[in-house]
Amino acid sequence: MSGNSFGNIFRLTTFGESHGVAIGGVIDGCPPGFRINRKAIQKQLDRRRPGQSKITTSRNETDEVEFLSGLLNDMTLGTPIGFIIRNRDQRESDYDTLKDVFRPSHADFTWQQKFGIRDTRGGGRSSARETACRVVAGSIAEQMLNFAGIEICAWVSQVGGKGSHVDPAKVTRKKVDSNPVRCPDQKSAERMEEEIRQAMKAGDTLGGLISCIAKGVPAGLGEPVFDKLHADLGKAMLSINATKGFEIGSGFSAISMTGSQHNDAFTLKGKKISTETNRSGGIQGGISNGADIWFNVAFKPVSTIKLVQQTVDTSGKKVKIAAGGRHDPCVVPRAVPIVEAMTALVLIDHMMLQSSFKAFTRK
Amino acid sequence: MSGNSFGNIFRLTTFGESHGVAIGGVIDGCPPGFRINRKAIQKQLDRRRPGQSKITTSRNETDEVEFLSGLLNDMTLGTPIGFIIRNRDQRESDYDTLKDVFRPSHADFTWQQKFGIRDTRGGGRSSARETACRVVAGSIAEQMLNFAGIEICAWVSQVGGKGSHVDPAKVTRKKVDSNPVRCPDQKSAERMEEEIRQAMKAGDTLGGLISCIAKGVPAGLGEPVFDKLHADLGKAMLSINATKGFEIGSGFSAISMTGSQHNDAFTLKGKKISTETNRSGGIQGGISNGADIWFNVAFKPVSTIKLVQQTVDTSGKKVKIAAGGRHDPCVVPRAVPIVEAMTALVLIDHMMLQSSFKAFTRK
Amino acid sequence: MSGNSFGNIFRLTTFGESHGVAIGGVIDGCPPGFRINRKAIQKQLDRRRPGQSKITTSRNETDEVEFLSGLLNDMTLGTPIGFIIRNRDQRESDYDTLKDVFRPSHADFTWQQKFGIRDTRGGGRSSARETACRVVAGSIAEQMLNFAGIEICAWVSQVGGKGSHVDPAKVTRKKVDSNPVRCPDQKSAERMEEEIRQAMKAGDTLGGLISCIAKGVPAGLGEPVFDKLHADLGKAMLSINATKGFEIGSGFSAISMTGSQHNDAFTLKGKKISTETNRSGGIQGGISNGADIWFNVAFKPVSTIKLVQQTVDTSGKKVKIAAGGRHDPCVVPRAVPIVEAMTALVLIDHMMLQSSFKAFTRK
Amino acid sequence: MSGNSFGNIFRLTTFGESHGVAIGGVIDGCPPGFRINRKAIQKQLDRRRPGQSKITTSRNETDEVEFLSGLLNDMTLGTPIGFIIRNRDQRESDYDTLKDVFRPSHADFTWQQKFGIRDTRGGGRSSARETACRVVAGSIAEQMLNFAGIEICAWVSQVGGKGSHVDPAKVTRKKVDSNPVRCPDQKSAERMEEEIRQAMKAGDTLGGLISCIAKGVPAGLGEPVFDKLHADLGKAMLSINATKGFEIGSGFSAISMTGSQHNDAFTLKGKKISTETNRSGGIQGGISNGADIWFNVAFKPVSTIKLVQQTVDTSGKKVKIAAGGRHDPCVVPRAVPIVEAMTALVLIDHMMLQSSFKAFTRK
Repeated sequence: MSGNSFGNIFRLTTFGESHGVAIGGVIDGCPPGFRINRKAIQKQLDRRRPGQSKITTSRNETDEVEFLSGLLNDMTLGTPIGFIIRNRDQRESDYDTLKDVFRPSHADFTWQQKFGIRDTRGGGRSSARETACRVVAGSIAEQMLNFAGIEICAWVSQVGGKGSHVDPAKVTRKKVDSNPVRCPDQKSAERMEEEIRQAMKAGDTLGGLISCIAKGVPAGLGEPVFDKLHADLGKAMLSINATKGFEIGSGFSAISMTGSQHNDAFTLKGKKISTETNRSGGIQGGISNGADIWFNVAFKPVSTIKLVQQTVDTSGKKVKIAAGGRHDPCVVPRAVPIVEAMTALVLIDHMMLQSSFKAFTRK
Repeated sequence: MSGNSFGNIFRLTTFGESHGVAIGGVIDGCPPGFRINRKAIQKQLDRRRPGQSKITTSRNETDEVEFLSGLLNDMTLGTPIGFIIRNRDQRESDYDTLKDVFRPSHADFTWQQKFGIRDTRGGGRSSARETACRVVAGSIAEQMLNFAGIEICAWVSQVGGKGSHVDPAKVTRKKVDSNPVRCPDQKSAERMEEEIRQAMKAGDTLGGLISCIAKGVPAGLGEPVFDKLHADLGKAMLSINATKGFEIGSGFSAISMTGSQHNDAFTLKGKKISTETNRSGGIQGGISNGADIWFNVAFKPVSTIKLVQQTVDTSGKKVKIAAGGRHDPCVVPRAVPIVEAMTALVLIDHMMLQSSFKAFTRK
Repeated sequence: MSGNSFGNIFRLTTFGESHGVAIGGVIDGCPPGFRINRKAIQKQLDRRRPGQSKITTSRNETDEVEFLSGLLNDMTLGTPIGFIIRNRDQRESDYDTLKDVFRPSHADFTWQQKFGIRDTRGGGRSSARETACRVVAGSIAEQMLNFAGIEICAWVSQVGGKGSHVDPAKVTRKKVDSNPVRCPDQKSAERMEEEIRQAMKAGDTLGGLISCIAKGVPAGLGEPVFDKLHADLGKAMLSINATKGFEIGSGFSAISMTGSQHNDAFTLKGKKISTETNRSGGIQGGISNGADIWFNVAFKPVSTIKLVQQTVDTSGKKVKIAAGGRHDPCVVPRAVPIVEAMTALVLIDHMMLQSSFKAFTRK
Repeated sequence: MSGNSFGNIFRLTTFGESHGVAIGGVIDGCPPGFRINRKAIQKQLDRRRPGQSKITTSRNETDEVEFLSGLLNDMTLGTPIGFIIRNRDQRESDYDTLKDVFRPSHADFTWQQKFGIRDTRGGGRSSARETACRVVAGSIAEQMLNFAGIEICAWVSQVGGKGSHVDPAKVTRKKVDSNPVRCPDQKSAERMEEEIRQAMKAGDTLGGLISCIAKGVPAGLGEPVFDKLHADLGKAMLSINATKGFEIGSGFSAISMTGSQHNDAFTLKGKKISTETNRSGGIQGGISNGADIWFNVAFKPVSTIKLVQQTVDTSGKKVKIAAGGRHDPCVVPRAVPIVEAMTALVLIDHMMLQSSFKAFTRK
């Protein structure tokens, strides 16, 4: 209800402020008897963590996850999996001068309006630090999905004005990680990296686009009315910090197409019914059709910039600020594993819901 | 859970197949002691109903809502408001030839995969007919929001390749309704209407874009992590039939902006803190900031076309089909009140959740 | 949230005032492809309906259920099953003199305090008339449970001071229905019936006890912490009008037993592990153990009595009242199918939840 | 969904095995700006913790709670409050001989049936150790309720065959704590204590009864249909380990009363409407009426006994066991703060839900 839980059957609840003792989470509803791979979790955390390359923030967090419950020799017990990640490199002092101002396009002002109190030690709960917990839970979900034959892969397809050419069918996580930008089109990646360096030099920041594909999703997932599969994916993506938009399959480009151009004709591949094209993005009527699910997520430029900005302080006076502190020039390279995690959380929840139907049939 | 309910505190559950006896809904959590305006509800239903103009489907449904509970002399009792809308002009025969084929980009195939059975009398529950129930509940929610000073207005901003120029600050529902396309820019509306006529003539269909604004929303609504206000709006919109994308504020255009271009500087209007620009779309960190909330929703072209298409029948043979039956050449004019309804449902739920916090403060 | 829904995966939402147009409900999450038996539903409704015998209220409702959706030729579609029951014999005039008084031990006063408004046409939503909808949904759930080998049977085990001797292992619904009291111990039933007649004559009412057994429930249902199976059964029973208490298995008698007296020793029946006794009531640690589930539900005497009572009117003046109108002298005979319905709703929800776990195992 | 969360708006999720690293919880929905009293939390934990007196288990846990988030200088931030309690005195070796047997009336067998795997280090998640987390959350809820004028007090009213005479109107927590049994009737307490000592000596255990009262609860809390206030209290109590029954107000004694004996006549105290008696237990039609809420909870005798018992091992062979290890001879003295905690969790959730209604009134 209060927005710190995600999912219905496989359900993640997260807690923790960016500059508090620790962040953490509880996964409820995880099936029993599944042996998790801790290294795979840490690998996804490492892809998200700050300080991983020269084009990310220099805050240094090792982001080691400590599991407190729900596992016995790495085997899931079916009980809630509680875990924490200690905050190590928090520097409250970075925020001393920002305590009393509302940073433009941050959550400082809205937070104050909503809660009447805010964590002046740092970004608190509005910081993207919270997403590390999503990556932990998402990685466990993803391991289960892998076991069921589903693969998820996200990548950076645009940074600022620089786009790319990527064949979704051939993308792999290894190719994605072949450069710090996480764009599998090496040439475009270089241009993007250069763009990011220029923005850093200018004390400015950039937006970007992440694309994601999920292969091997069985047909039949998703509920046809309010909980359409792409509606749940959309919510999941829009709940990630700094997102401004979501589109499934053809997305916004569908606006200017005709039905005859846009429809995906059904055909047979062997005896299996499939579609000749996939403008639907693997989802029709809110339900997966067995084709690849693909979508894009738009991220705004990071709000924290070194350039001088006009704003207002908490006493209601106009002031000027220029951010010190550590921040990312562009979040999309680090957001790739977050997009993957949220995708996994949506898919496993719908798979488990679908399984619940299987017990009763009398025709 | 099974996707036929929306909202947490103010919660709508809908039921009913497109070609069954009736569709209907239950609104649970509606506050007591509020006198509803039935005409206002019917007016929104009339804006959504088929057969309202020459550029919509000719299925003739009066869509009169019958309230069964929760009201006494139109005053809400605080008990669930049950209502039904009888289906009158269903023509099962229209679907006879379609019973055994999977229509391209419809939910026929995915439905069969999910449920193993489907309502062969028509689109069943995957038909947009279900959205009439959302309009009923949304209109009640909207009346309460109006009482609290909030106004919602949606309009068609693009049809196929034809865009428009609309000043969101000046848009009114009256202007929106001044033409059958529901685009308040009259000249553009004419071009759009012509485009739709051409598509009809060609037996084809068009996509479109709906924009929406909510004015007077107090700062502080929305939860900062998973239930961000724009994430819930996104899910709401993506749960509407035929939607392919959602963007809040600057949306996808934010990708290619820098932080210094994109940030909304805080300033003072009198003593009130507000922003000079509104690229945030009225939401920062998932919480409303008191500025206008604005967003866009992309709709694909209607899947039912009169042109011959390749597909597969339920026995797994390739066949060709050309739709008879009645359908819209472009859904966006009729989807305007649906977008408004879903916006109202999201906002009232978040307002009620926010109110629940008010009882306990000991500093 | 607002208390008009029950269940998580198999979820019933009800609506309707006792003296409004209709009552009804929506069942969401019902598995597809199951052919329902309408006669079985009506039979349970008939066991609950008023006017069925000389010891029940004379309000005459046929309680015919009209299904509006979710079924095609009585086969479940997997979509929400909407249904209504029209109110036919409502006599608002019965309540005219009661409009302005708070009837002792009724919900009139608390309702006014909660909602600030109440349905003065009758008991509104606090009337047990609402439970007819539970019987409809419960009967559908029960049919599915029957199919899975589970049988549910409730009976009246006490009326006022008159108890009974019933062997739960041998009780059948037919024996239960062999007398209007619904106590399968015929001699005790006669004493109970006599007690009820005397109370009627005296213008007074009686309390009673209902016992219930569920046979064939597989081991493993129920969640070990908050959603213990007996906790959910307890809530289900305590949500029925006029209930005052719930006990599982040994119940309150366990208080004065020692551990060595109370423990159910495990033993083998063939190769199957079972218990020699069943003081646990079929549930250990909140999870079913495969033995019969059995429990008792206490009902208070009906609050509406013909005797003169002291009370207060809505303007805050002391007044005396004596009920006219129609009411039951003792509710337990009619509450038997309601107890069965709520039991079925709890069990099917836990079965479906348990099924959701089945997809992922990698040891 | 999976039963490790409780509450809708003020929502507790717990995690942790009895013999794992730690147990803990997350409180979501806690209102911001409330300064919590840590000592009051620890005091309730101390009343629950093992090793507190000679009539409780000798397992030595200090049960110190570590808060990880949601607080700034003990002020609630409105964000989730994450906390953990490290397990210190776990002795896995105690359970070595029990690994392969199903202890009678424990959850060993049902757990194995449900999950197919169990935590052989100890009672795991079925141990009452989990309830320490409920006490933490319940104490925070209680502090907020105290601020709103509500007081909760529970006590032991029966142990084995020994009852007591307590005037609920005069009971205080101080009186309750004046003896290790937690029965405010000193003479009865002595008899109970003696009974417990005898059971200990005999290697056996005892059941008991806890009574609870909540004073100052405003009229209007509770939902009239499924989420009746006493139904939610009942579920809360029945979710506590070892409970077998729940009764509100007159409870099971109502069965043998007539309506004229049982009804609570309304009267005036000054200008305030109240009832002359309180057999309703402060709740009518599922909604609080402003009178004291009172109820009883039955606990079975502890299942772990030193006497030899017949049982079956995991390989399906009959074996005999006699428990070593540490356990309570009677749980009720330690369960008193758990009953209080669960009461507080139910009440605060209903208060917050009721507050959510307050924003909209247009008559």
